Amino acid sequence: MIATKGYAAQSATEPLSPFNFERRELRPHDIQIEIMYCGVCHSDLHTARGEWGATIYPCVPGHEIVGRITNVGNHVTKFKVGELAGVGCLVDSCRECTNCMQGLEQFCLNGATFTYNSPDKVDNINTYGGYSNQIVTDESFVLHISDRLPLEGVAPLLCAGITTYSPLRYWKVGNGHKVAVLGLGGLGHMAVKFAASFGAEVTMLSTSPSKEADARRLGAHHFALTKDPEQVKKLSNYFDFIIDTVSAPHDYNMYLHMLRTNGVMICVGAPPAPAQIPAFNLIGNRRSIGGSLIGGLPETQEMLDYCAEHGITSDVEVIKMDYINEAYERMLKGDVRYRFVIDMATL
Amino acid sequence: MIATKGYAAQSATEPLSPFNFERRELRPHDIQIEIMYCGVCHSDLHTARGEWGATIYPCVPGHEIVGRITNVGNHVTKFKVGELAGVGCLVDSCRECTNCMQGLEQFCLNGATFTYNSPDKVDNINTYGGYSNQIVTDESFVLHISDRLPLEGVAPLLCAGITTYSPLRYWKVGNGHKVAVLGLGGLGHMAVKFAASFGAEVTMLSTSPSKEADARRLGAHHFALTKDPEQVKKLSNYFDFIIDTVSAPHDYNMYLHMLRTNGVMICVGAPPAPAQIPAFNLIGNRRSIGGSLIGGLPETQEMLDYCAEHGITSDVEVIKMDYINEAYERMLKGDVRYRFVIDMATL
Repeated sequence: MIATKGYAAQSATEPLSPFNFERRELRPHDIQIEIMYCGVCHSDLHTARGEWGATIYPCVPGHEIVGRITNVGNHVTKFKVGELAGVGCLVDSCRECTNCMQGLEQFCLNGATFTYNSPDKVDNINTYGGYSNQIVTDESFVLHISDRLPLEGVAPLLCAGITTYSPLRYWKVGNGHKVAVLGLGGLGHMAVKFAASFGAEVTMLSTSPSKEADARRLGAHHFALTKDPEQVKKLSNYFDFIIDTVSAPHDYNMYLHMLRTNGVMICVGAPPAPAQIPAFNLIGNRRSIGGSLIGGLPETQEMLDYCAEHGITSDVEVIKMDYINEAYERMLKGDVRYRFVIDMATL
Repeated sequence: MIATKGYAAQSATEPLSPFNFERRELRPHDIQIEIMYCGVCHSDLHTARGEWGATIYPCVPGHEIVGRITNVGNHVTKFKVGELAGVGCLVDSCRECTNCMQGLEQFCLNGATFTYNSPDKVDNINTYGGYSNQIVTDESFVLHISDRLPLEGVAPLLCAGITTYSPLRYWKVGNGHKVAVLGLGGLGHMAVKFAASFGAEVTMLSTSPSKEADARRLGAHHFALTKDPEQVKKLSNYFDFIIDTVSAPHDYNMYLHMLRTNGVMICVGAPPAPAQIPAFNLIGNRRSIGGSLIGGLPETQEMLDYCAEHGITSDVEVIKMDYINEAYERMLKGDVRYRFVIDMATL
């Protein structure tokens, strides 16, 4: 076994603290990665604090992982020692179901294995994530990372990036479309960048005027204050798509009314309470509301390649490992522009 | 003005009763139709009883109209006296907005004129529907009706037919798709017929075992009792589409879980209370829930032509005009297979 250092939550109520554990010896298709940066996702916090149920402790969060390959198993063909590599939210899936066969491993019908808090399919040991100095993962769930981009800004692409890229691609968002982005956080700022890059006219919808300058800097063409009834009224029947990245409680219907005929509201945030949607708000204008979950491996690689080609990264604040608990508190207050990324050299 | 006989609600609480009124003199593009049959839609009842707000009394319902042309205005080019003709839910729209220009008059951005309880765009007089012996309507909102089908079964196509045909076409439902139909009433029985005709595998979902024989006769390949947890479980991740025709309160989430990856639940029924939908139920499997409202004029004609070609009509119970109040009571109990149609010769 491979001695590994990390940070873990020992219970739902304790702060994260240093934790020594072991990674498995490399299986034939495994890759060992020295982690250089790991992004900090809201899911990390929810899982560490047991807010989504079934957390197994100790819990080592982190699924926005980039680093350098230090070892490979005997049968590894896709990677070499010394190359950069990334690991996102998934580390395994059944690889046999219709979804896996289409590269939609996130929807594996037999249950995907997540990067943390998920039983490994071979040894049933609970997975530990990227708040650690290294990780051992099957090559089929490892991504190629370009050396053309700053790595700290690449790490969040593995979750925040693919979560917004995937639905924009699935719904074929691009030239000629009017797109609203709801919520300017880790997901929202990537949605703005991608939608603008794909050629859409992008409007940032926000309750806070202080977000305008940043939204425009990130690529938004317009900004609308949703607390101002006049601005809301002007956007009636306006958008082809709304990307809703908000996980706080909010009323979906004000936004649904901003959708023009055939418009789609795409949810990537998950508020605690159900959305309340009168059927008439869908029937009118033939609107839809859909959801999307990260992305499969092929599309994640496509997204990373697209970002390398177009110079797209996440806007990050690099932190030391021992700052993680303070970072969680700041994240809860929305006080981060727009993703914390842990420099693993500080572990 | 043209003396006309009909049936009207004089208030929200009174039964419908005989009502004499006047149709306008023909404008250059108007057509006068002697109504032969008029279907009875749930919307008629809701409007007559003021359940959807703003009903102007007296109210003459009816928007599933077929009959024979008795007169045409000077500039009418599309129709001749003596031909069969139909009128559905719409009798006018702005004809200029982007939706009207695309033949989506039902979503007219300036407000379509409905066949009853809607102000006429020229004289502002409240429209009166098809529970009457004749109607005068602009030729652009009149449909050609084939003489190859029994007219009483054609009348409900003008609302129940197009309401189910349109979303099946919009979402390109056909060969290879697994489609569930929820609710076996006026809309549901047409959804079964169309989905089966388009080549989909159709499953009727119902709480009542008594519906099975009829569902199969109408074209459903399978039947599932949604009160049986075992049958529900088997349908997990199964359907590409669910056509939800139910206007009674129901839990959308049991059905959402039956959708496979990328599946769409299409609402054409409108329950009184909002649907409660946790975002996770959309995010998981990249599901969507959308709505659809009748159809535009070009698509309504396409649907009528399709029905004539494929021998599709509504299953109806023909009633006399003075049976309408009893028919409403039976409709409320779901005691109709599957559409009441008034024989206007009985007026």
